[in-house]
Amino acid sequence: MKILVIGANGTIGKAVVAELVARHEIITAGRSSGEYRVDLKDAASITALFKEVGKVDAVISAAGNVHFAPLAEFSADHYAIGINDKLMGQVNLALAAQNALNDGGSITLTSGILSSDPIRFGSSASMVNAAIDGFVRAAAIELPRGLRINSISPTVLQEALESYGPYFRGFDAVPAAKVALAYSKSVEGAQTGQVYTVNN
Amino acid sequence: MKILVIGANGTIGKAVVAELVARHEIITAGRSSGEYRVDLKDAASITALFKEVGKVDAVISAAGNVHFAPLAEFSADHYAIGINDKLMGQVNLALAAQNALNDGGSITLTSGILSSDPIRFGSSASMVNAAIDGFVRAAAIELPRGLRINSISPTVLQEALESYGPYFRGFDAVPAAKVALAYSKSVEGAQTGQVYTVNN
Ligand SMILES: NC(=O)c1ccc[n+]([C@@H]2O[C@H](COP(=O)([O-])OP(=O)(O)OC[C@H]3O[C@@H](n4cnc5c(N)ncnc54)[C@H](OP(=O)(O)O)[C@@H]3O)[C@@H](O)[C@H]2O)c1
Ligand SMILES: NC(=O)c1ccc[n+]([C@@H]2O[C@H](COP(=O)([O-])OP(=O)(O)OC[C@H]3O[C@@H](n4cnc5c(N)ncnc54)[C@H](OP(=O)(O)O)[C@@H]3O)[C@@H](O)[C@H]2O)c1
Repeated sequence: MKILVIGANGTIGKAVVAELVARHEIITAGRSSGEYRVDLKDAASITALFKEVGKVDAVISAAGNVHFAPLAEFSADHYAIGINDKLMGQVNLALAAQNALNDGGSITLTSGILSSDPIRFGSSASMVNAAIDGFVRAAAIELPRGLRINSISPTVLQEALESYGPYFRGFDAVPAAKVALAYSKSVEGAQTGQVYTVNN
Repeated sequence: MKILVIGANGTIGKAVVAELVARHEIITAGRSSGEYRVDLKDAASITALFKEVGKVDAVISAAGNVHFAPLAEFSADHYAIGINDKLMGQVNLALAAQNALNDGGSITLTSGILSSDPIRFGSSASMVNAAIDGFVRAAAIELPRGLRINSISPTVLQEALESYGPYFRGFDAVPAAKVALAYSKSVEGAQTGQVYTVNN
């Protein structure tokens, strides 16, 4: 398969590429890394990416940013960061992918465990992650041509503990290589509308 | 208790008022109905509402609009309708309510069953409803002064079947009076961070 990976140079993206590269042709993209430039916040750059890359069999997003802050300091503008980047960036990617995928192709988005297991400062992440999972369940039943869509909802990664550890006390972190298996299942399996939670 | 109900004149709102009015003082609000005018899409109108109404013990939202259309026809602008109205309208209401509620007061938002049980044309509703539930779970753990927040996630109402029936074939509709009980539980109970699904 020809697989486009957005955020291929990130903590999750690198592990996903390592898992899939032995069996598939991988095309990498990111804002400032990878073979192609794309910013998910900018719908026009997504359209341009698919124009350059051409038809693919799978699109994976392991990208997206949200704002973290105490609830008492959150404004509508802070929520807009996650809505425009991680949420609508990935939704716009999915909408564009509908036309760029070969029949039977798949879309795999990334949400995260905060949707159901919240932490302090994480109200935007919880909102956005849950929204991605809700979108995936619904989009799956309307996609044409046997196209599929799933999301991966990992707990915190072992590789991310150095940066995020203090916010995730008591969370049982998983290795990126284990998270990558869920992306493999989404792309190489046949299920659709699934939220693959990756936890210990 | 003094309870502010946004959308009090709607299908759900009327039933909520009927359930609570015997035991509490109800203040009603809506875009074009109720004792006070507010448009959840407009954060300034939410601020103005709380300035007029003063301190309350509970805030209930039974309001919010989303766009329905086939996935193939959905644009980012269509998703923005539900994000700005039902999602961020209710999130902004919750943020403003933090300061308008008496100690121990509660916020009750409305999502809906499409978060987990999708229908054709409903990708925005599924996304927005799931986002509201995710926000509620997270906000609950950060609210100060014993404030609580829950969401009500009803299946389709019997009273709404005349309008929405064709989109909800096979759904076991519930009467508005049963849905209203979940709002009573949220306001008059002591739980927080809960998503009360109302189903048969
Ligand atoms: N790390 C964790 O523990 C964890 C757990 C659960 C969920 N997640 C989620 O998984 C996703 C990836 O996390 P990560 O830790 O792997 O992040 P990361 O190490 O920061 O990598 C993110 C990757 O995505 C690219 N990227 C970021 N924003 C982008 C945008 N708007 N458009 C295009 N590319 C973009 C970045 O490349 P450039 O900088 O070159 O753009 C980078 O390659 C995030 O959504 C995160 O919330 C992470
Ligand atoms: N009906 C169902 O079967 C069902 C099932 C699950 C979930 N829900 C959800 O429950 C909520 C209420 O549904 P409903 O059927 O009761 O709706 P409805 O009958 O149309 O009533 C909506 C009420 O909210 C007010 N309203 C609407 N948008 C508003 C805004 N932006 N700002 C302030 N007030 C606003 C309306 O008053 P004005 O017109 O005067 O503003 C009206 O009083 C919606 O979010 C809906 O998605 C409904």
